[in-house]
Amino acid sequence: MEQVAAVAGGLDAAGIEYIEVTHGDGLAGSSFNYGRSATDEEELIKAAAGVIKNGILTVLLIPGIGTIEDLKRAEACGAKAVRVATHVTEADTAEQHIRMAKSQGMKVFGFLMMSHMAPPEKVVEQAKLFESYGADFVYVADSAGAMLPDDVRARVGAVVQAVRVPVGFHAHNNLTLATANSLAALEVGATFLDGTCRGLGAGAGNTQIEALVGVLNKVGYQTGVDFYKIMDVAEDLVEPMMHRPQVVRNAPLMLGYAGVYSSFLLHTYRAAERFNLNPRDILAELGKRRMVGGQEDMIVDVAYQLANQ
Amino acid sequence: MEQVAAVAGGLDAAGIEYIEVTHGDGLAGSSFNYGRSATDEEELIKAAAGVIKNGILTVLLIPGIGTIEDLKRAEACGAKAVRVATHVTEADTAEQHIRMAKSQGMKVFGFLMMSHMAPPEKVVEQAKLFESYGADFVYVADSAGAMLPDDVRARVGAVVQAVRVPVGFHAHNNLTLATANSLAALEVGATFLDGTCRGLGAGAGNTQIEALVGVLNKVGYQTGVDFYKIMDVAEDLVEPMMHRPQVVRNAPLMLGYAGVYSSFLLHTYRAAERFNLNPRDILAELGKRRMVGGQEDMIVDVAYQLANQ
Repeated sequence: MEQVAAVAGGLDAAGIEYIEVTHGDGLAGSSFNYGRSATDEEELIKAAAGVIKNGILTVLLIPGIGTIEDLKRAEACGAKAVRVATHVTEADTAEQHIRMAKSQGMKVFGFLMMSHMAPPEKVVEQAKLFESYGADFVYVADSAGAMLPDDVRARVGAVVQAVRVPVGFHAHNNLTLATANSLAALEVGATFLDGTCRGLGAGAGNTQIEALVGVLNKVGYQTGVDFYKIMDVAEDLVEPMMHRPQVVRNAPLMLGYAGVYSSFLLHTYRAAERFNLNPRDILAELGKRRMVGGQEDMIVDVAYQLANQ
Repeated sequence: MEQVAAVAGGLDAAGIEYIEVTHGDGLAGSSFNYGRSATDEEELIKAAAGVIKNGILTVLLIPGIGTIEDLKRAEACGAKAVRVATHVTEADTAEQHIRMAKSQGMKVFGFLMMSHMAPPEKVVEQAKLFESYGADFVYVADSAGAMLPDDVRARVGAVVQAVRVPVGFHAHNNLTLATANSLAALEVGATFLDGTCRGLGAGAGNTQIEALVGVLNKVGYQTGVDFYKIMDVAEDLVEPMMHRPQVVRNAPLMLGYAGVYSSFLLHTYRAAERFNLNPRDILAELGKRRMVGGQEDMIVDVAYQLANQ
């Protein structure tokens, strides 16, 4: 709780508008499957609510992992906004959550994960669904860090043209392009960007927010964020808490290259050993076949087929 | 020597064309001022020469630090190419070194450091000087990691239009844009790019080459480099040798933001303490005044003026 309060307070003082406090897999994400949180999420949300003065305390909800009841509890703890995240083709699973959050007076982001897996017209269709449910903002998320700047421009640009609400972009750094992709999103009309101090996040991490603020200052965008203060949050508060430096090692690089979920990694290593294959060939093939999370049982089949080629 | 031989051999087997083995400040850079090498440079060049089969062993020479005699010794140790590097406005200091290297049959790169400090027309003028001395290739180098993709396009694009020889680009990652800037250079006609495994380099480091190869594969460029093999060199050979992870901490970020030399850092911290200033304000002011390496004595003056404002 002390750590969350320190970081949330620092981000707030630096001028960050939306501050998200939730398990990486959303409300109720703390589980055997997704990894246990050290502290109950309600306590963490309350800790942040107690220190945020200007920013908007936000939570993440992935329908199917978290429920409407979880969201109500988070709102009672002080959350004022929610990011409702679905796979890029599954926006309709978020309708009830978005409508409920709006009825509670929360700000709502509709958040399309793994957007690299769908063509721009599909991303547009799904973003419009979010808008029709009442979302205040829609987000294109490159959850696997698989997009090149042109991929970002195509998808974000198409969504900006198609919806009336503001559009955001969420990057991962698997291909070392998180900052550049964020710039590409702004170029085509996005007005919200995500980041984390030192890029802290699963695998290759997210956009390194203190660097992003510096770059945006240099380009001439107004961010509302104090560059020195956000640097200090990164170096004085977040970095000392990190368990490992945020480096792009081979596994996240290969996930971004193949465009697949990080949950595939362990299963792929096991299958590679069993069939005497290079795990990277399996990941590349899974990407080609556009496998999505939940299809981990297919990895053995793919490995078997590769081994027999 | 064993470390250099292992890495050079790995890079060679992965398909890297030019493999540079020299102190970061070039031949004879091992000194009190620039930092001592653990091993004599001639031994390191010989160690690389003994393992490289397909690549071209390259050395770095900064006229004023290294001399023509140093270059002759490096050539006798097996170097086949040299990168002669000058400040972006000082190409004429390299004429004798370039002509001598050509007369020895070496491949020669003319390398313009701190290119962000000069406008495109000045970079072109200096690149043409290199070409007139006989350089086989010219390089635009973003030594402070201060460029945005548009800065790269402007300078590299102008040089590509103006010279007949192939053009290269050398990035630093201070603003987390090294890979994106490398892509921008290719877009406007560069055909040579630099990189290091895991981005290993001073401060924020250079372009992470294994990520760059993956990105170039995805875009559809032919690099001649084996993606899996270069990843393995990074993770199995280079990473275990690194003294610290290559993370963009605040100091290199601020240097890239301000566009100043890393040699300014220590002097700036001292001046900040003496005049009770934020060192970042001093660095930003040094960047605005376009101070170059060797002007460290001006830092106290700048700090004094800032303190009296």
